[in-house]
This record gives sequence, structure tokens and C-alpha cells, in this order.
Amino acid sequence: MGWGDLGAFGEPSKETPNLDQMASEGMLFLDFYTASPLCSPSRAALLTGRLPVRNGFYTTNAHARNAYTPQDIVGGIPDSELLLPELLKKAGYVNKIVGKWHLGHRPQFHPLKHGFDEWFGSPNCHFGPFDNRALPNIPVYRDWEMIGRYYEDFKIDLKTGEANLTQIYLQEALDFISKQQASQQPFFLYWAIDATHAPVYASKQFLGTSQRGLYGDAVREIDDSVGKILHHLQQLGISENTFVFFTSDNGAALISAPKQGGSNGRFLCGKQTTFEGGMREPAIAWWPGHIPAGGVSHQLGNVMDLFTTSLSLAGLQPPSDRQIDGIDLLPAILQGKLIDRPIFYYRGNEMMAVRVGLYKAHYWTWSNSWEEYSKGIDFCPGQNVSGVTTHTQEEHTTLPLLFHLGRDPGEKYPLSFASDEYQRAMEQLSVVVQQHQVTLVPGEPQLNVCDKAVMNWSPPGCEKLGKCLQPPESDPKKCFWPH
Amino acid sequence: MGWGDLGAFGEPSKETPNLDQMASEGMLFLDFYTASPLCSPSRAALLTGRLPVRNGFYTTNAHARNAYTPQDIVGGIPDSELLLPELLKKAGYVNKIVGKWHLGHRPQFHPLKHGFDEWFGSPNCHFGPFDNRALPNIPVYRDWEMIGRYYEDFKIDLKTGEANLTQIYLQEALDFISKQQASQQPFFLYWAIDATHAPVYASKQFLGTSQRGLYGDAVREIDDSVGKILHHLQQLGISENTFVFFTSDNGAALISAPKQGGSNGRFLCGKQTTFEGGMREPAIAWWPGHIPAGGVSHQLGNVMDLFTTSLSLAGLQPPSDRQIDGIDLLPAILQGKLIDRPIFYYRGNEMMAVRVGLYKAHYWTWSNSWEEYSKGIDFCPGQNVSGVTTHTQEEHTTLPLLFHLGRDPGEKYPLSFASDEYQRAMEQLSVVVQQHQVTLVPGEPQLNVCDKAVMNWSPPGCEKLGKCLQPPESDPKKCFWPH
Repeated sequence: MGWGDLGAFGEPSKETPNLDQMASEGMLFLDFYTASPLCSPSRAALLTGRLPVRNGFYTTNAHARNAYTPQDIVGGIPDSELLLPELLKKAGYVNKIVGKWHLGHRPQFHPLKHGFDEWFGSPNCHFGPFDNRALPNIPVYRDWEMIGRYYEDFKIDLKTGEANLTQIYLQEALDFISKQQASQQPFFLYWAIDATHAPVYASKQFLGTSQRGLYGDAVREIDDSVGKILHHLQQLGISENTFVFFTSDNGAALISAPKQGGSNGRFLCGKQTTFEGGMREPAIAWWPGHIPAGGVSHQLGNVMDLFTTSLSLAGLQPPSDRQIDGIDLLPAILQGKLIDRPIFYYRGNEMMAVRVGLYKAHYWTWSNSWEEYSKGIDFCPGQNVSGVTTHTQEEHTTLPLLFHLGRDPGEKYPLSFASDEYQRAMEQLSVVVQQHQVTLVPGEPQLNVCDKAVMNWSPPGCEKLGKCLQPPESDPKKCFWPH
Repeated sequence: MGWGDLGAFGEPSKETPNLDQMASEGMLFLDFYTASPLCSPSRAALLTGRLPVRNGFYTTNAHARNAYTPQDIVGGIPDSELLLPELLKKAGYVNKIVGKWHLGHRPQFHPLKHGFDEWFGSPNCHFGPFDNRALPNIPVYRDWEMIGRYYEDFKIDLKTGEANLTQIYLQEALDFISKQQASQQPFFLYWAIDATHAPVYASKQFLGTSQRGLYGDAVREIDDSVGKILHHLQQLGISENTFVFFTSDNGAALISAPKQGGSNGRFLCGKQTTFEGGMREPAIAWWPGHIPAGGVSHQLGNVMDLFTTSLSLAGLQPPSDRQIDGIDLLPAILQGKLIDRPIFYYRGNEMMAVRVGLYKAHYWTWSNSWEEYSKGIDFCPGQNVSGVTTHTQEEHTTLPLLFHLGRDPGEKYPLSFASDEYQRAMEQLSVVVQQHQVTLVPGEPQLNVCDKAVMNWSPPGCEKLGKCLQPPESDPKKCFWPH
């Protein structure tokens, strides 16, 4: 989902009454970011509070490439990383993930080995394969074992877009919340729905209900589900004791537009890029009785902050033996403070850009290659900013391209290198970047090696279901990441 | 101002708390349009309830050209047109215009000759000239006579952007409202501020207060002023008896960006074009006790509807001796009804596009000429949709370019001519267009002839001020409209 997909963020069809109400009862973050312009690294950052370049969710196979966790990926979340649920456990929290995990699908990366107590969902994306023949369909797990596969047991009709997955995920969430309330145990629910990821899907009752087509139907179902979750918390009388945060793992994928693509509002480009459209996210904090209703925050936030903020809410300290990039947002949320901190825009192993205050400096620009672009793969459809949305990797490290995101949120007008404003802003930014880069210790890259043998041929539980497949011989190779 | 300039419409700095509150207390229109992508024709349409091609506010000097009322224009609003204040007068209303008139500056076009009882403001735009030497500075009128000129008596500091004009306009509005309340006479106030038109200006107290630069300062001052006007109505106890509507006369002028340009959200292009960015407008209706708070409407609306709606509020019928394009929006506003009606997108003498439901068909496309574009004049900066934002006038009358504005509000993906959807939608649209064009009787074009002799050399009242200038010999010519 992208920044512009909610009514509260200016989506012209204004079809998200529940999320809009969540914002009017809570706090809207207008300057909230993800840690990566795509899924796996962003989710790893959310759960570790650390940039992907630290927690290993990146590749060094080529410069500045977007890597993630397809089925043939060998790597995943390292044991050395401390995940939010592992830490919350120490404070008595019961942790559940519903939906897409995406931090590795091999046994050692299983969410229940990394702090979660329960899981309902899939290890990889639902975007294929679809026939379970040449390659295995993605399994759906309940806790330790698979209970079926996408397109076989958990249908997604690729023609109509019909699938009742969000309803299943919703019910899982409601049941878990009820159970925790009944047992009076604190809980962490990571509700990682994926209906707006192509192939986009929605339940029958939502199909055709949106002005926006199937993508809008999916958004409406998510919106409706969020409303039901919040209502459930209220009905159980625990809303004033439950902190809820809504956000997304990357900007809307404009390559899927117009049929399956969302909106990044007026921001430049989308998923896969480090322009604002790729990394600025819708974000809403909700906690009745604590967060002033209708609040709006310009705090520069990041999904990694949810790690530190959640620990703070649980009365825990973040680990002190490693660099944590997330900050505690509670002063911003509860007291309206503005905490000075930079936003780093990474693509794989490269810091492409940095934001400090309203200034954003691009040290590298790239949308995708001419080769991909000429095949019709366009991360910035209808947009073209000369020298900015470049189709070759352009280095600007000696004279970064500088934008003022207040006057120019669309990143269309780089400031003149000769201007006083450029000089002043870059003085500030350079110090931040230098300090970041000098102290950076990259983690072991986890997304370099691919091997067909590690795919979900025979996940645990497949025997009971008669759904085990024979893996091919192991043949590890460098993964190929085209952009 | 553009669709995307208000927080309620997704402007990322969210700096319009008063307009956002007006929306939350009233009704937000998401699909509201102007009748022309630039000022004079749009304002003429607002006050006559008729398309510019009917009321004469267009040119036939060249095909599909944007024409307006600069100082050397000979034409203006014809006497044969019935303006909203003329009609409201019959119901006992006292009418005042504060700000820019723009319906012609020669004596016969004076607002007090067309139904207004009071005027404080200027007949033309404040964008120049600036020195009163080669050409006269624009006069500022109080009622029948000028009381000074821009840049002489009414300063706009072109370096700092400082001008207290919005404060003066605000005070005029508040005083008029107070006076009308005291005399218990119904009133129509046309508050036509122009601070967001380049050269953009703001009062000292607002300068530097916006994230968005000077343009944002101007928006903030307008926002603040609207808040004060609404508050004034409430304090006087007449808010439940006063219908207030906020909108704009055209999309944000992106040629003035980033320093002086606003935002059209995610819509394509801006002022001067018939893409959504040029003609979809922010719009809010406010009438406490009548309009349900927090309402959102997808009614296709148009500035011309304010004519018919205002008459309806005053218990009057629109004139029956002529074609009126505006509709009565009260059923949409008060009962949430959706009235089926098309939106016509005109540029000069050409119907460029039409919207019916969520479908918009372009019969002609044009941004501006290659000649202008090559000089850096760009109505769609950073945007380029092949075959859509064309730099030659492209005729599509036999096979219009069709967009679904729900799935594709940015007009990036024309529907396939071969699709069933195209066929079905065009069948509907063609009927509407045919009926419109067959019955259309264009008015006498008022914006064809220019003459330096008619400029504001010696407006009424200039003698008292010693501000009369000597006009040159009359030398009428065809006006040149480059785009």
C-alpha cells in the first residue's frame, strides 16, 4: 500500500472510513518511512529495529540492488538478530504473526524460532508459482506445520481476484485477541496482511465495491478489517491498554498499475525506488485515552521505530550490544515532541539518499535499467524528472542532488548547487552521512545465494497432507537481482 | 489553488487546520470542477451559471486557446448575461465582491453595473505591470472609484513576497458581514482573494511559517482568514443561516512551481490544461445545522452550480430564457443524493473532454506548444504521459482517449479502444456529447480584441488621487493567446 491509498492521505475516492476514523481518533504521521523500498528487508527492519544493511537483509551480488526472499533464497533472518517478539517475551507477552513472514522460509528461519508463539500465514509471497508442478506453490502454515498451499487449499482466483484470505487473517486476529484478553496476558499481534500485493485479491463481499477497481476492493477489505479489530478491542474493554499502529512495508507498486497498483499520492515513483513514492508510508497510531484524538505529526518516523517504541511500551530497553536504528516515538506520540533524526534511504548495499529535516539529498539516483525499462517495466509511470529518475545508476556523492520536501515533495526541482541554501543544508547533511557511514558495520548479507533445492518442496507437515514434493539436487548460485 | 493544496485533500504538510475543520463540520466534495482551466472564464461561469462558451468568456482567434482579461482586453461580461448578484437582489440580498473581479475592467463591465452593491478589490490580476510607467499599474477600487494602485498604494514586495492584502480583504469581509447582520439584511459575499496567484504574497505574520515556502504562507493566511470568517458568522449567531462554499477557479499553476506553485495532488498537469490537475478543485460546503458534519460527496460538481444552488437557497428560480449549465446541488448537499450530470472540459472554443460517471473522454489533447515548451514553459513538470500530455493539438474526436478516473485518477492509462469497457462507456458518453454539441449556441466571443488604449490609464477616481495617465491612441488588434 502506498502513502496516497487512504482517504486521510488524500486518495480521491476516499473509501477508507475505518482507517480515516482511526486517524481522527489517533495520530496521523505524514513523514513516516520504511527502511527499504521492498518487502523482506522492510519487514526484517521492522522486527529488528535495524537497517537491512545491518541485519543482513540485503545483497552484495551487485550494487544497489533490491533483494528479497523468494522461494529459492538460501538465507533468512540470522539467529544473531534479536527480534521484537523475542524481547517482548521477557515481559510476558504472547506473540502472534498473522500473514506474510518473509524473513526466510527454511526451518532455522521459522517465526516460532524467532520469538513468535503462534503463526498463521505464509513464509513467502503469494505471487506464484500457481500450479505446483515445476515449482512448489507457497505453503500456508499454522504454527510449526503447513496446512495447505496457495492456489490449492487457499484459493486466489487469478481471473476474478476473489480470495477470502483477508477474512481468514481477520478471524485469526480477532480470536487471538479474545484469547489473550480472556487469559489476561499481554500480547503482540503482527497482522501482516498482503491483499494489496499483486496478484491483488478481495473477498466476494468486497469485489466490485470500489471506484478504484480490484486494488480498491482489497484496500476496502483491509480498511473494514482494521475497523473490526479496533472495534473488537473496544468491545473487550482493552482499547485503552492496547497500542495499535498501521503502516506499510513499501510504497505502492506502480508497475502493477492501473489494475493492481496503488497510489503514492503526489510523491515520485513507487516500490523498488528510493524516491518518496517508494518509501514514504501511510502511518497511524491509535491508543484511545493516551494519544490525543486527531493529532498530526511531522515526526520523521520509520518502521524500525516500532521496534523501539514497542519495547518502551512494554517497559523494556532495546539491546545495548548492537546498533539499533529505531527510536522511541512515544515522546512524539504522547507529548507531540519532534525528535531530530535522519532518514536513510537504502537500496541493497547502498545508501541512496538521506533526509534531515525537510532536506533530502540523493547520493545515488536510479529507477531501473534501460534494459528493463525498454521491456515496459516502469517504476515511475507517467513521471519523468530529468537527471533524477535515471535509468543508469548515477553517482552524486560529491555533489548530492538536494530537494526541499516542503516546497517540492515531488522531488522535481533539485536546488542549485551554487545557492546558499544548498551549501547550508549540505553542511548539516554531510555530517550526518559521514557519521553514519564511518560507524556502519554491515551485517553478513543474507540475500546473495539462491538454490532451487531449498524451495518449499517439503515443508514440515507436508507428509500428513500428502503434499510433499521431491526437491531437485542442490545447486547454489548467486541470486540475480535485476534492479 | 489546486485540489491537493489542503490538508483535507492530502497535502503532505497538512497546514490548513481551518479549512480542514470546515470540511469536518461540513461536506467535502472530491469531484468538483471549474468551468475553465483559468481565471476569467471560470469566474464568469461561476457568476452566470453558464459555460464560458455561452457567456462569451472565450476567444475564436485560434483553436482551443486560453483567453482571459488582461488590461488591454476590450471585452468583458456582456450586459445580456444575468449575474448571480443581479438575481439575488430581487430577493433582497445585498451583494459584495471583495478581491479580484476579472470580468472586464472597462466602465460597462464594472461589478456594480452587474448586480454588486459594494466592491473592494481590483479588476485585473496583480501580476504586473509593476512600475506604472510604460503601462499602468492595476487599480484597486472601492465601489465606483479607484483608491490607489497595486505596487504604489497597495504594496506587494516582489522580493520578500510581503503584502497585507489578504488581511485587508479579510477585514472587508468581516465588516460587511457585521453590517449585514446589524441591518438584518440577507447578503451575498463573493470573497475572491488572490494571494496564491503569482506573484504569491502573504502578510508579515505569515511569512516563513509554512513548510511549503511562500506559496504555503499564502495558503496558511487564506486558511486562517477562512477560519476567522466562519468564526465571525458563529459569533454573530448567523452561521446556521449562512451557506458558505470554498473552492478555486482553476488548478494550481505548476509553471510557478516550486517557489510559487501549488499542488494538484496526484492529478495530471495543472492550470491551463483540461487534465484533472487543471480543472478539479478543492471544494467544501459549510452550513452548520443543515449539512451533516463530516460529509463526503462524490457528486460531480462545478463552480457553475454555485449560481443555481445560491438561487435555490434564496428561493429563486434560475432564468428560463437561456441555457443554464449549473445545477442545484442542495439535494446532494442536504440529502446525500447523487445527481447524474456530465462535466465538460472546455479550453476556449473547444470541448476538449467530457466526464460522465467515472469515465473521462478526451476529444482533444494539448498541454502547450513545442515552441513554448522548448522555452521552459511547462504545464506538466515532471509528468509525461505519451500521447496524452501532447505538445501539438491532437484530435481524438472519432476515437476519444478514454480514462477510468477511479482506477486511474492520474490519466495515465487510456483504455483499449478494442475493449468492451471502452465500447460501453463511449456509447453513453457519445450521446451526452452529441446532445451538448447539437444544442450549443456559442455566445459572442468577448476575448478576441485587445487595445492598449483601454488599459487602466484613467480609472474613475484617478483625478482625485492625481493618478490619471494618458492613454495611447486606440489601436485594436486581435489578442494573441499562445496556449
